[in-house]
Amino acid sequence: MKTVRLAMIGFGNVGQGFAQLLVGEGNRLRQQYGLDFKIVAVSDRTKGSLHRTSGLEPQALLDAVRQAGDFSALSEDTTAWDALQTIQNAPCEAVLELSDTNLQTGEPALTHIALALRLGRHVVTANKGPAALRYPELARLAHTHGCQLGVEGAVMSGTPAIHLGLDLLRAAVIRRVEGILNGTSNFILTQMEAGLEYAAALRQAQELGYAEADPSGDVEGYDAAAKLAILSAVLFGETLPLEKIQRQGITALSQADLASAARRSERWKLVASLERRGETLQAQVAPVSLPLSHPLAGVSGATNALVYTTDLLGPVTLIGPGAGRLETAYALLTDLLAIFSAGSA
Amino acid sequence: MKTVRLAMIGFGNVGQGFAQLLVGEGNRLRQQYGLDFKIVAVSDRTKGSLHRTSGLEPQALLDAVRQAGDFSALSEDTTAWDALQTIQNAPCEAVLELSDTNLQTGEPALTHIALALRLGRHVVTANKGPAALRYPELARLAHTHGCQLGVEGAVMSGTPAIHLGLDLLRAAVIRRVEGILNGTSNFILTQMEAGLEYAAALRQAQELGYAEADPSGDVEGYDAAAKLAILSAVLFGETLPLEKIQRQGITALSQADLASAARRSERWKLVASLERRGETLQAQVAPVSLPLSHPLAGVSGATNALVYTTDLLGPVTLIGPGAGRLETAYALLTDLLAIFSAGSA
Repeated sequence: MKTVRLAMIGFGNVGQGFAQLLVGEGNRLRQQYGLDFKIVAVSDRTKGSLHRTSGLEPQALLDAVRQAGDFSALSEDTTAWDALQTIQNAPCEAVLELSDTNLQTGEPALTHIALALRLGRHVVTANKGPAALRYPELARLAHTHGCQLGVEGAVMSGTPAIHLGLDLLRAAVIRRVEGILNGTSNFILTQMEAGLEYAAALRQAQELGYAEADPSGDVEGYDAAAKLAILSAVLFGETLPLEKIQRQGITALSQADLASAARRSERWKLVASLERRGETLQAQVAPVSLPLSHPLAGVSGATNALVYTTDLLGPVTLIGPGAGRLETAYALLTDLLAIFSAGSA
Repeated sequence: MKTVRLAMIGFGNVGQGFAQLLVGEGNRLRQQYGLDFKIVAVSDRTKGSLHRTSGLEPQALLDAVRQAGDFSALSEDTTAWDALQTIQNAPCEAVLELSDTNLQTGEPALTHIALALRLGRHVVTANKGPAALRYPELARLAHTHGCQLGVEGAVMSGTPAIHLGLDLLRAAVIRRVEGILNGTSNFILTQMEAGLEYAAALRQAQELGYAEADPSGDVEGYDAAAKLAILSAVLFGETLPLEKIQRQGITALSQADLASAARRSERWKLVASLERRGETLQAQVAPVSLPLSHPLAGVSGATNALVYTTDLLGPVTLIGPGAGRLETAYALLTDLLAIFSAGSA
């Protein structure tokens, strides 16, 4: 049995999802992979900080947060270490960086990740900021310090889109990536196809918790653009400023547009695409009316999908969940197993 | 630069495809991964055997076979080593096992693979026989001898279905696998939807080289059943005798059946499925009328697809090419890179 000690920075939705996965799957992971994942420290901006070398019980962390909204029930001194001190002092093999996303600066996650890597700790994150803004540099830093950086959770939650492109398709050269990378807008389009007008479909998405009160991040294509920036940085090694991504959302589409596409055997989808053309990368998010035979046309509801076009294979398409607290936490586990469990051929 | 010396057993379609990939991609693989793949021996039942410690030129092997159908142009003595002697004597790190498939006994590939693994050589194969009949035992043998066994090419050619299930979804427990695993029958169904009767669609598949003169392996579901047996052995560690797989082909479907499904917004597909129910695995190949919202319903033409249902994620679907000499050769390269190149998280 190998103990893998983890420090968690951030204990919001995804962090709690991860703790929940450890509660439910910890035994199986010990048996199946001989890996005992142990949370030795946790630091959250609002919930406080805790550390215990012998390990903190994930269920106790969840209970404390559910009951009081913070870790005060577990310790009288929950302000001992801040995030940086936690990364610095916790005796751990890996840091889970799950602080709030900032797509402008990447902070504070960028500083957290860089510090952890310099200390030779592996880092696993679902945070979009650092992956979109600085992945190539962080990957080099990880390499220099003999550790790994996992960002599977930053795109399509637990659906292993990043590992597919980075590991499984690496025998080929990826020429083009196109996908449905925002589940909320795809849900709205699916409901509009079923007959709802845009406003009613959006209201339904908000009621189901898919869309926020201000839905512009989803319906104007900002979220999909951020995911393109991540794919560019991770798969092509090129950071792509968000303002350089051509972006158009779905707000101009009407139910009539969708009905008319259906009569042509087509479907409107918000397609995010990234393509190598000579030395430049072209990136755009735009509604596209796809023929039903297109691999993305059949993707309905809040599901996400990605089509990789390479030089050696025909299009390879991956379809799966694109969001969710357990689904995203699952991505962290995928990255941790890739780092700590011996691979199979 | 790390030299990886390869011995090839079998130089048919896939073997030649692999040589062609080395000709086209060798430089890129050296630059990108620091790996120099070198064929030091090749042994084919009808084309003869060659070995050269300094490496055989893949283009020369291809030219010899194209011109004379064998290796006689390259050496006066092409009978020096048989397959077993090649595996035994060639100074190599990996053996590519590409001899003819035998789904009853797995031989001679089984003997080749077992010998190679006992000698501590990694093995990469696209051969369905050993993977379907003895994968769990061969994987243990590989483990015992500190080497790896790659079988990515045995299902869905270069589409990385095996690695997806084995590596990327290993944080979860796979409950169900269902797929379109035979491109020929899917091509025929797609043509029937477009209006052709079965006999005409089959004739078209034969003219395009998708179906053989005796098409029963494809249209009666034998090929899909063999792939289920491979998935069972690789993903669940359980060998599944082919006769225990319930099997029904597409020959009883008429154009009228497909048209009537279309009116119900459904599509007939030959679905291969494998499901854990308690302690037993249930496997079957059968035509199923799927609602258009099903992830397999939109898969058309000779394309293959696989849906993994796990306990922790929603369905994850992979769609891509299912056959082809370069596509299958690509799978060998994927396995070789997984073995010899350091992974990324």
